[in-house]
Amino acid sequence: MKYSFANDYSEGAHQSILNALCETNLVQTPGYGVDDFCERAKAAIRRAMKSETADIHFLVGGTQTNFTVISSLLRPHQCVISSDLGHINAHETGAVESTGHKIIAIPSVEGKITAEAIQAVLKEHAENPIAEHFPQPAMVYISQSTEMGTIYSKAEMHSIHKVCQDYGIPLFVDGARLGCGLTCRSSDITLPDMADLCDIFFIGGTKNGALFGEAVVFNDPKLGRDFRYMIKLRGGMLAKGRLLGLQFEQLFTDDLYFKLARHANEMAEYLAEGIAALGYKFDAAPVTNQIFPIFPKKLIAELEKDYSLTFISHVDDDHDCMRLCTSWASDKQKLAQFLDDLKKLS
Amino acid sequence: MKYSFANDYSEGAHQSILNALCETNLVQTPGYGVDDFCERAKAAIRRAMKSETADIHFLVGGTQTNFTVISSLLRPHQCVISSDLGHINAHETGAVESTGHKIIAIPSVEGKITAEAIQAVLKEHAENPIAEHFPQPAMVYISQSTEMGTIYSKAEMHSIHKVCQDYGIPLFVDGARLGCGLTCRSSDITLPDMADLCDIFFIGGTKNGALFGEAVVFNDPKLGRDFRYMIKLRGGMLAKGRLLGLQFEQLFTDDLYFKLARHANEMAEYLAEGIAALGYKFDAAPVTNQIFPIFPKKLIAELEKDYSLTFISHVDDDHDCMRLCTSWASDKQKLAQFLDDLKKLS
Amino acid sequence: MKYSFANDYSEGAHQSILNALCETNLVQTPGYGVDDFCERAKAAIRRAMKSETADIHFLVGGTQTNFTVISSLLRPHQCVISSDLGHINAHETGAVESTGHKIIAIPSVEGKITAEAIQAVLKEHAENPIAEHFPQPAMVYISQSTEMGTIYSKAEMHSIHKVCQDYGIPLFVDGARLGCGLTCRSSDITLPDMADLCDIFFIGGTKNGALFGEAVVFNDPKLGRDFRYMIKLRGGMLAKGRLLGLQFEQLFTDDLYFKLARHANEMAEYLAEGIAALGYKFDAAPVTNQIFPIFPKKLIAELEKDYSLTFISHVDDDHDCMRLCTSWASDKQKLAQFLDDLKKLS
Amino acid sequence: MKYSFANDYSEGAHQSILNALCETNLVQTPGYGVDDFCERAKAAIRRAMKSETADIHFLVGGTQTNFTVISSLLRPHQCVISSDLGHINAHETGAVESTGHKIIAIPSVEGKITAEAIQAVLKEHAENPIAEHFPQPAMVYISQSTEMGTIYSKAEMHSIHKVCQDYGIPLFVDGARLGCGLTCRSSDITLPDMADLCDIFFIGGTKNGALFGEAVVFNDPKLGRDFRYMIKLRGGMLAKGRLLGLQFEQLFTDDLYFKLARHANEMAEYLAEGIAALGYKFDAAPVTNQIFPIFPKKLIAELEKDYSLTFISHVDDDHDCMRLCTSWASDKQKLAQFLDDLKKLS
Repeated sequence: MKYSFANDYSEGAHQSILNALCETNLVQTPGYGVDDFCERAKAAIRRAMKSETADIHFLVGGTQTNFTVISSLLRPHQCVISSDLGHINAHETGAVESTGHKIIAIPSVEGKITAEAIQAVLKEHAENPIAEHFPQPAMVYISQSTEMGTIYSKAEMHSIHKVCQDYGIPLFVDGARLGCGLTCRSSDITLPDMADLCDIFFIGGTKNGALFGEAVVFNDPKLGRDFRYMIKLRGGMLAKGRLLGLQFEQLFTDDLYFKLARHANEMAEYLAEGIAALGYKFDAAPVTNQIFPIFPKKLIAELEKDYSLTFISHVDDDHDCMRLCTSWASDKQKLAQFLDDLKKLS
Repeated sequence: MKYSFANDYSEGAHQSILNALCETNLVQTPGYGVDDFCERAKAAIRRAMKSETADIHFLVGGTQTNFTVISSLLRPHQCVISSDLGHINAHETGAVESTGHKIIAIPSVEGKITAEAIQAVLKEHAENPIAEHFPQPAMVYISQSTEMGTIYSKAEMHSIHKVCQDYGIPLFVDGARLGCGLTCRSSDITLPDMADLCDIFFIGGTKNGALFGEAVVFNDPKLGRDFRYMIKLRGGMLAKGRLLGLQFEQLFTDDLYFKLARHANEMAEYLAEGIAALGYKFDAAPVTNQIFPIFPKKLIAELEKDYSLTFISHVDDDHDCMRLCTSWASDKQKLAQFLDDLKKLS
Repeated sequence: MKYSFANDYSEGAHQSILNALCETNLVQTPGYGVDDFCERAKAAIRRAMKSETADIHFLVGGTQTNFTVISSLLRPHQCVISSDLGHINAHETGAVESTGHKIIAIPSVEGKITAEAIQAVLKEHAENPIAEHFPQPAMVYISQSTEMGTIYSKAEMHSIHKVCQDYGIPLFVDGARLGCGLTCRSSDITLPDMADLCDIFFIGGTKNGALFGEAVVFNDPKLGRDFRYMIKLRGGMLAKGRLLGLQFEQLFTDDLYFKLARHANEMAEYLAEGIAALGYKFDAAPVTNQIFPIFPKKLIAELEKDYSLTFISHVDDDHDCMRLCTSWASDKQKLAQFLDDLKKLS
Repeated sequence: MKYSFANDYSEGAHQSILNALCETNLVQTPGYGVDDFCERAKAAIRRAMKSETADIHFLVGGTQTNFTVISSLLRPHQCVISSDLGHINAHETGAVESTGHKIIAIPSVEGKITAEAIQAVLKEHAENPIAEHFPQPAMVYISQSTEMGTIYSKAEMHSIHKVCQDYGIPLFVDGARLGCGLTCRSSDITLPDMADLCDIFFIGGTKNGALFGEAVVFNDPKLGRDFRYMIKLRGGMLAKGRLLGLQFEQLFTDDLYFKLARHANEMAEYLAEGIAALGYKFDAAPVTNQIFPIFPKKLIAELEKDYSLTFISHVDDDHDCMRLCTSWASDKQKLAQFLDDLKKLS
């Protein structure tokens, strides 16, 4: 059996979630997320955010969350600005377009886009005398951490938010990997900061210890108006909504969410240091739980006998960039074994 | 704490599912439903269906399943025929229309529509000299059991399918409550029959012992072409797809799916007999796990102190029709207590 | 060559429009409706409306106008209330649904719906504790004159508008046949009244003397925000937008629009009186330029040798209801001939 | 009054069209394009194409035609490949995305994309093991002539078509300026060739002598199945459809369509030669009726006192690229005057 670094959703859930599932299994609740589990989970998240007013909703998965939020806030002629590598642009089968909205993709550096580049797009549209022949940019979407494992600093995110505010449009942060983004060594952003640094974000559960589940936070509750209709309409309203509440309640008890993310980051750091020590380079500097080493193709072929990695891109005739993910469930012994094997094969 | 008859998804999951979750939690799998759990579940369902060719996919919820299937098979100008009480027409926030398709609603009797009424719609459109000014009916959607708890007999479903075949359009059966539909006393349809009686159907897990999950079956695999794109596009592709496979594997081991449904039906029968014995009428004859007694409003007010029921409709100034659901998790002692209380209040 | 009563768009355009087309043919203008022709036409309509603030846009056709306006103002979870016979519900190939919105159809009497019926729908939704499982009614659509040739009185339209205002939603009036609606004998509504009686309406050119063209009026300019994007997005922005301006400028010069409509109504009245004098009944009382006599099938077969009529519905084994349209172009001699022929055949 | 080179739809229509309009104005026809004018126009186009089987439909405008055709042929998960400068990608307010489909934009050279680049996109998708996470490319869209005034040679278009056929997807050619594309000096493609070189194309009337109108041609009638529903659904079905038939009948009488296009090309050639003779460069080699000279900004400011040009892009601090369009209506005397003025200002 190969050990998988292919993604951060290879295993089930943290044991505390399984325990809670088993203990509360026969409790009866109303359906569709209006139960006590959900209420307690929302309260726990608001406490962790130090916000009393945030409007919080739970959905099952990230793609679903992205297009539900985006299509909820855009009028038919409006589009969303994203990094070219943004998950909505690059990995979601055109789900956002399927709801009727174009994505304006800005070329990214290490998965990130800048306030300046965003402003340039907004300014060009605002000054276009025949603007109505082009979709109107009306939202900015970024991911924290990004699809390349990097993070926006507080100053960077603040600048992006400032541009959005100048143009009167919301900033939406895809937090499928928010835990790793907030807890990595170089992060200077806390969860409470997120209440000021953007307008909407989500807290990813799927990739950080839950069986599934994403918690959408509207910092300004007006933006969340009628959002329960949207969840239902887009197929994201779980009949047994309690399952989402239960999981987020566990994750936001005793800082579990952050502990799990920190573990994932530490494991990635351990891996990255071991790989770097053997002289390998990375396509983007390792920051969170996704690392992107460049390996010789022959080495990759050997490694893939015992490990699952994800191919990212061809670097040259002899080298490919691969992605290795760690997670809350990563086992340091397996990682040590991997580094040992890598050493032997190098 | 009130005891709830409000729906059939008030509790968590059957114990065997929880056990399997806990036992396999740290097994690593690839994401998005291409894992061994899903493969085993599909094989188990094919065995239960006695079909070797059915194309099977797992989604999280019923609304999602309905609009994903319907929008997958219709061209932009096409519409779907449904009962006026059909879940897609009456309870899904316009999700089907949101994908661009009108629903032609046929008035139902006890939740059912007839082959004759369907044929009349199809014939009228086919013979309309300016048909292009109207949406083209290109699919029929029925539920088994229906939203009123009733079922289509084999002859009825066969007639409807025959009309669909005559007009070259698929019949899609919403099986959110298929278990109860197939195992109730008056049913003459088996799961293998479903391979012949319709073109697409789904096997509901959410309302029959699973935490969540619906298994879509394309009897003709050609109809399922590219369906994985559709699932992803519509937000229904669970990252930890294994969870769907695991649950359906359990449900289709040792006939568990049918045993659970039979229990729900038996509990409903017990309730219905007790209610009828006290002289109350029903809005539709009790057949499966949803029953629709007509109670005096004053009685309802008393009952609601200890029980959750669902209001359906006003019958007259003094009487309302209520829905009571049973499920795999119904506790006969609680039901006996309810009947006792009802007797005292009557 | 048969004489056609089949519709009110059988001929080309009023001569003054052709003259203006020929005279201005080589004048150069910018494209897409930002030319002087359009500006003058808007000014002329504002004068006729006695409104200085109305936001006016020109589109090519009625179906296009309907779905462009409706989809511009609704969020994804919202739906529009219409008469069951409303053009959007009954004759537009599901175009509104194609933009993602359900239509709630209220049964009509002679093509009309009442403020009470509309209020009942809005009240039921507003009071529904699980409203998010249903599309949210957020606009009312009526036609003046209606699809049955009838009209709303000022009091009726005012009542409907009042309900809309109470619920904070706009009233949109389809004026494909507004000219006939305003100028018929029983009308008590003037064009300036329309500024108060609804939120958006359109002034139909296609069916009243133009080659094509509908003028959308947003009484509150805020509702028309970004509407030029919508027109472009939905394919309604004519490159040579001048053609729309030119036609509406002609129609709103010397009251031509109203003169043409009055002619159509007078011709219908002449026809209806002649038909009634022969003892025939009508399916709806003749009011504007569409009349709905009930004729024996054998008579219809004879008439159809020389005239085009439109079949509406079967009345009984021997009788059908037919529609006869008159228009700005109706020739009284032909009508007299028809009545003569009808008399001979009766 | 400035003379406008801003576009090729600044004037009305060719005189023969106005004459026909006036002469046939009171002829009665059925609505929606099923009249004799349309039938004769289709026959005339089929004769000009030397095709007996092409399925032909008339729509009002180009954006409308593009999204109606594209959304008619794609399933929800499919996308269309285009040049980055393609009209659908760059000038249509996201209309294609609004129907639910992503556009994959390939960087163009002088407005053109290559068979190799298209094949690379198709191959990458076909070989992707997780292809369902990406939209499926299922159509190729190119423009002839392109948005930069250039044209595809017969060999180039054949190569692109071959790639499409290899992957089983249709090639759709936007012919808003097909006349100029076919009649320019360097063209080696004839209208009959178009029946073999692509699957669907349209013949632009708006930019070549008509008031409006585009004729869509499905070389394989199966691709046009139910297309009249699509036209109605998307708002493109003109009530007085005769107007489209009448115009295309005139355009395809005595080769008028080609004569008009040839005039536009000759006028552009005359302009381009005059401009080049003064030493100015072009952003793309002048080929058809759109030319893209690079002028000093000061010169542009002077020219714009008497002429309308279209700004395209900044070239450097002192120079901009401008677009000048000629058309069927271009007056050689005005062009001579422009060249004189340019000479004086240079």
